[in-house]
Amino acid sequence: MTASLKAIDGSAELSTLMTDLGRSARVAARVLALAPPEQKNRALEAMERAIRADDDKILAANAEDVADATASGANSAFLDRLTLTPARVEAMAEGIAVVRGIPDPVGTVTESWQRPNGMTIERVRVPLGVVAVIYESRPNVTADAGVLCLKSGNAVILRGGSESFRSGRAIHDCLVQGLREAGLPEAAITLVPTRDRAAVGLLLSGLDGNVDVIVPRGGKSLVARVESEARVPVFAHLEGVNHVYVDRSADLDMAKSIVLNAKMRRTGVCGAAETLLVDRAAAATHLAPLITMLIESGCEVRGDDAVQRVDARVAPAAEQDWDTEYLDAVIAAKLVDGVDAAIAHIHQHGSHHTDAIVAEDAQAAAKFLAEVDSAIVLHNASTQFADGGEFGFGAEIGIATGKFHARGPVGAEQLTTFKYRVHGTGQTRP
Amino acid sequence: MTASLKAIDGSAELSTLMTDLGRSARVAARVLALAPPEQKNRALEAMERAIRADDDKILAANAEDVADATASGANSAFLDRLTLTPARVEAMAEGIAVVRGIPDPVGTVTESWQRPNGMTIERVRVPLGVVAVIYESRPNVTADAGVLCLKSGNAVILRGGSESFRSGRAIHDCLVQGLREAGLPEAAITLVPTRDRAAVGLLLSGLDGNVDVIVPRGGKSLVARVESEARVPVFAHLEGVNHVYVDRSADLDMAKSIVLNAKMRRTGVCGAAETLLVDRAAAATHLAPLITMLIESGCEVRGDDAVQRVDARVAPAAEQDWDTEYLDAVIAAKLVDGVDAAIAHIHQHGSHHTDAIVAEDAQAAAKFLAEVDSAIVLHNASTQFADGGEFGFGAEIGIATGKFHARGPVGAEQLTTFKYRVHGTGQTRP
Repeated sequence: MTASLKAIDGSAELSTLMTDLGRSARVAARVLALAPPEQKNRALEAMERAIRADDDKILAANAEDVADATASGANSAFLDRLTLTPARVEAMAEGIAVVRGIPDPVGTVTESWQRPNGMTIERVRVPLGVVAVIYESRPNVTADAGVLCLKSGNAVILRGGSESFRSGRAIHDCLVQGLREAGLPEAAITLVPTRDRAAVGLLLSGLDGNVDVIVPRGGKSLVARVESEARVPVFAHLEGVNHVYVDRSADLDMAKSIVLNAKMRRTGVCGAAETLLVDRAAAATHLAPLITMLIESGCEVRGDDAVQRVDARVAPAAEQDWDTEYLDAVIAAKLVDGVDAAIAHIHQHGSHHTDAIVAEDAQAAAKFLAEVDSAIVLHNASTQFADGGEFGFGAEIGIATGKFHARGPVGAEQLTTFKYRVHGTGQTRP
Repeated sequence: MTASLKAIDGSAELSTLMTDLGRSARVAARVLALAPPEQKNRALEAMERAIRADDDKILAANAEDVADATASGANSAFLDRLTLTPARVEAMAEGIAVVRGIPDPVGTVTESWQRPNGMTIERVRVPLGVVAVIYESRPNVTADAGVLCLKSGNAVILRGGSESFRSGRAIHDCLVQGLREAGLPEAAITLVPTRDRAAVGLLLSGLDGNVDVIVPRGGKSLVARVESEARVPVFAHLEGVNHVYVDRSADLDMAKSIVLNAKMRRTGVCGAAETLLVDRAAAATHLAPLITMLIESGCEVRGDDAVQRVDARVAPAAEQDWDTEYLDAVIAAKLVDGVDAAIAHIHQHGSHHTDAIVAEDAQAAAKFLAEVDSAIVLHNASTQFADGGEFGFGAEIGIATGKFHARGPVGAEQLTTFKYRVHGTGQTRP
């Protein structure tokens, strides 16, 4: 596949190339589905080694990408995501070691029962097939997504942002070397070998049934496009409009530490809190300390009337603030009439991602955890735990807010499906 | 909802009606998701009682449907599916009792673990939300699908074939009575109150996000339309081109009994075998007895050259026979070169539904079960066990051949998803 790195001119040629990639990935997926855990781990070990050995090539390729992006006027946040350093390359290698260490989900029998007629039925985990990952110019996703799909027995087609094209190719070379050393098909981890943006549309079409699921990794506009155009299932979250509700029963110190962490630890991650809801019954005791703390930590607060009265620096919240994922040091804040009103607000404005309650009252907490319809609901813990690593999954390919198949952090296990194996001794149905 | 049974004239009016149904179902779904098992079971018990008490009304409504269908020239298979008898009504009531007896999946904690920082993470089953079931004129589906969705905490919108409109309405009245007696919202089980076929298209659009999943129940053309037009996930199987492979190591008596049962027990069900593959190494011993048995049991056999040589009554198989779901007393049969060739044939022609191997050789069986990529794979048992009841699920809403979320018989458990509940003591993320 890496041989076809020539310029792609016509759309017919691109279409043929992508169709071939899909077909080869499907063939590789069948081999991968049956590969023993040791063989996959051998490949992962070789990939880790190759990334460390070739870090100079990876960094040189990345330097070219960064130079081009700088010349074309990319902003600093973009350049930061694009730039690799020796430490970031080492972190990529360490990430592969972590994935090698997690349990192999494929072949696990999750349930097994016997029928009155003597048949035994087993439910066993099997890979999904071919995963397509479409991401922006973050070179590390090439390695992260590639190895997680391998671990879960899936072939993967990777399509990174065109500005990271050379970096992705250098990293992909190391992954292919690992596949080769372990005797696995090289098409198991395929990098789309062209910058042509039309390749994304072809991936979204599902490549004649040879893509089983698409995982977009990037900003809201990328995810929205994938969700609206994809002809196959998508594991994604469009946004994380996450809430922290501080109940009347909350311990104030705990509330302060959780709110500060949920909002300010990293403001650009999808698990960051975007809205603070404070129980009206705790307004006198909890509201001012929380708002003052946020402002003093450098957070802009947009509040309802009650919140504005706390501090002159609070801006008035407009209606759309309750629906906004700031991904920045900004929070919307308001008083609500207890846990029921908090649940109603989240139901109206939330994005089914991650929401937390701070409360000492076990009944209020239980109600919140039961009724808030989000992938992750937390009691007395920060929303920033919304992460596969923090859940103990070792790695994640993303976070899903849909209700089907995968929900929350999507790790190796959620990249599998199952089948039923039935063991009989000649049973026929009456 | 049952009040709006007036004629629907304009498409704008229909669109408004359907949007309202979706919105009401969503509200009901939230109530249902939190309803305790006992309350749902109380409703099921009342429904069972109402169906027995109102069997005369149900039969009278059905007689009108049958009279209309007869007058309009419906064929006998159609009329058989449409017609209710006292025994069929009683079977419906018994089906409700069975669903009442199965375990309630909602709220089950399927996994629970503690993180090093002391947080406990639980994975807990929650309902999907609103299920839409689109089915042909089989009145019993109204009850079967309605109660299974209720048990699994989902609201359901039912849309049956227009020829069964009156029957469906009479059955639905009994279900609503049960909901009412248990204090559950009537919109939890909604029957589309019009024969207008445009309602199906509106359901497929997802009713402004108020339908979470669509389950089509019926022939291939209905399923194909739903799969191609639905804007939301679909649980379905398009067809069951199911295989029985008889290995060289097969016990001949067992092979005969399984092949006969898989093909002839009921030829019209989706778990019926459609293709017989016989190991070439067993041609001399197994082929003739199997083919003769099938012909003598009234099955038409379409075979390759070797099979044709067995009996003059064997017709030659055309290429499309290997891809055909006959749903009739017809089978395609051929010799293959061992288990690898059988797997290759199934991979090329199968529909990922249900496939079986008959073999004494454990290694051949293990290979077949591992490599055949179908929802259900069986060793030494009939393909006709592809059924939620036979799996011990109590009831099924259908069989799915997709790989996402639900696969194989879809019972109450697969009508749920999950969320993560995190219990902390003030943890923040470093």
